[in-house]
Amino acid sequence: MASNKGVIFKAIPDSFPVIGEHMELVTREIDIKNFPLADGDILLKNQYLSLDPYLRGRMRDSQIESIADAFKLGKVLEGHGIGTVVKSNNRKYQVGDYYYGFIGWEEYTHVPADAVSGDEGLEKEISKSELPKSYFLGLFGMPGFTAYIGLNKIGKAKKGETIFISAASGAVGQVVGQIAKIKGLCVIGSADEELTKLCPNGIDIYFDNVGGETLDIALNHLKINARVIACGMISQYNTKNPYGVKNLMNVVTKRLLIQGFIVFDHYHEMEPFQKEMREWLKQGKLKYKEDLVEGIQNAPNAFLNLLTGKNFGKAVVKIC
Amino acid sequence: MASNKGVIFKAIPDSFPVIGEHMELVTREIDIKNFPLADGDILLKNQYLSLDPYLRGRMRDSQIESIADAFKLGKVLEGHGIGTVVKSNNRKYQVGDYYYGFIGWEEYTHVPADAVSGDEGLEKEISKSELPKSYFLGLFGMPGFTAYIGLNKIGKAKKGETIFISAASGAVGQVVGQIAKIKGLCVIGSADEELTKLCPNGIDIYFDNVGGETLDIALNHLKINARVIACGMISQYNTKNPYGVKNLMNVVTKRLLIQGFIVFDHYHEMEPFQKEMREWLKQGKLKYKEDLVEGIQNAPNAFLNLLTGKNFGKAVVKIC
Repeated sequence: MASNKGVIFKAIPDSFPVIGEHMELVTREIDIKNFPLADGDILLKNQYLSLDPYLRGRMRDSQIESIADAFKLGKVLEGHGIGTVVKSNNRKYQVGDYYYGFIGWEEYTHVPADAVSGDEGLEKEISKSELPKSYFLGLFGMPGFTAYIGLNKIGKAKKGETIFISAASGAVGQVVGQIAKIKGLCVIGSADEELTKLCPNGIDIYFDNVGGETLDIALNHLKINARVIACGMISQYNTKNPYGVKNLMNVVTKRLLIQGFIVFDHYHEMEPFQKEMREWLKQGKLKYKEDLVEGIQNAPNAFLNLLTGKNFGKAVVKIC
Repeated sequence: MASNKGVIFKAIPDSFPVIGEHMELVTREIDIKNFPLADGDILLKNQYLSLDPYLRGRMRDSQIESIADAFKLGKVLEGHGIGTVVKSNNRKYQVGDYYYGFIGWEEYTHVPADAVSGDEGLEKEISKSELPKSYFLGLFGMPGFTAYIGLNKIGKAKKGETIFISAASGAVGQVVGQIAKIKGLCVIGSADEELTKLCPNGIDIYFDNVGGETLDIALNHLKINARVIACGMISQYNTKNPYGVKNLMNVVTKRLLIQGFIVFDHYHEMEPFQKEMREWLKQGKLKYKEDLVEGIQNAPNAFLNLLTGKNFGKAVVKIC
């Protein structure tokens, strides 16, 4: 018997989740050798768990529809992760293979046949790549791709333009900033009244990760025909009283475009992204910063740090 | 000597303009026969003045830049209008010709050479058309074209979609609604909590003329990938304390597009608009409602009615 520490979704938070109240650490036992697998099932030993702001949106009443399914009360929390297969009743996976997909916030995850959603292409990459495996949860994963699609496809960034990025040290923001520099944009990555000094001629693109007051201020600094890439609004995830944005008149007078997007809609376009990122990384044009904690028992606190902006770099939990 | 009644911009209003305080009716004398015209100047006898919400934005401190120039304190207010030339020192205009462009809120307007900006194409149309001349200030003018460009180019309206229009009885809204019907959209033109009943499956397009709380409510009813055509925000024109829009998280979760636009940017694309509108009008598919007042002395009150939503149809002043 092995121990299987994990984090349970215990109650729906109204504001910031509280450890013990909404997320609870539990230790269960697991008999790996005799673990019963139905046809198509696999059992994973988890290696890396990605912590992402959108997970806060899954801590909601399951009656409310949104981007991703609500977490189930009493069950273990989920997230993007990398595991290795320790037992398999699925002909696609052999023991020792990498699995890239949704895993539990726990040391071992049983993935039933109908939930097996591993990304074969990325799993091959992970097994042969010399890069840290966790990079595939960030730079080459959802956050990196979010940065790439948001900047290029939604924002149509052009050389010589000025971009302002909120949460610029986060998983998405750090990649946005670097790609923008590679493309020859002028990059501003901090948020306060100093915008007038930093961008005396105004902002062409605002890559918005935080929403609320920062968005409100940015609206006043945007140029005519500027674009707001609405990627996330982390300042609004932990409140029932959202901030009221007052400067929307700029949308009309400056002919602004505000475009929301969800990276999940663009996964079929991943190839050029991965190719360019690999190239830039190899050439040293791109650097990648992770904020790594060890042990699944530290995931809840790391998640809270992420929600309060205390992380510097992509938040990842190294599980084993 | 003739009398020349007009309306002077007397002071900058903080909220709704007050007659006497911010707009003042004056009667001046004008000697038409001996009126001195410099080279290129013309003198107009005004026939129709268009009252449009954006004029409120021109009642501001001239230090603040915006779409259209600020009105000059102590000078007569301006607007789109139609006049006939009563005296000309400009080889383009003969006495009796129609003039279509900016005129004063007054009975006679002296247009100096450098301000002569008449639209030759429309002037020809007006002189030969059997339609009421005032239609060229609405249906065939700026508001009609705003509706057309907003719906087609910005909103990319498609058959079978559901559109919600605020200020649907106004100059722009009434045209939006009718074109949308011609194109086979399901049209909803009122604003309250009834949206859930009227659009149980949600809204694909919101044509926003009012902003503020109506925009906030609409955001909650939009479908995934819906579009907001940000045409105007009349609810916010008369306050220094704009409404705070709280439901912008929908922009991210529903991948919304919010696109502001100003019709002035699209005037080079007017031809297909005029052609289609003429056709639809002839076929009886399109009707047009004007809210017409007579006498320039009634312009200030009609403008206030427009700002408070009391008009039903395009607001026009018949001057003579």
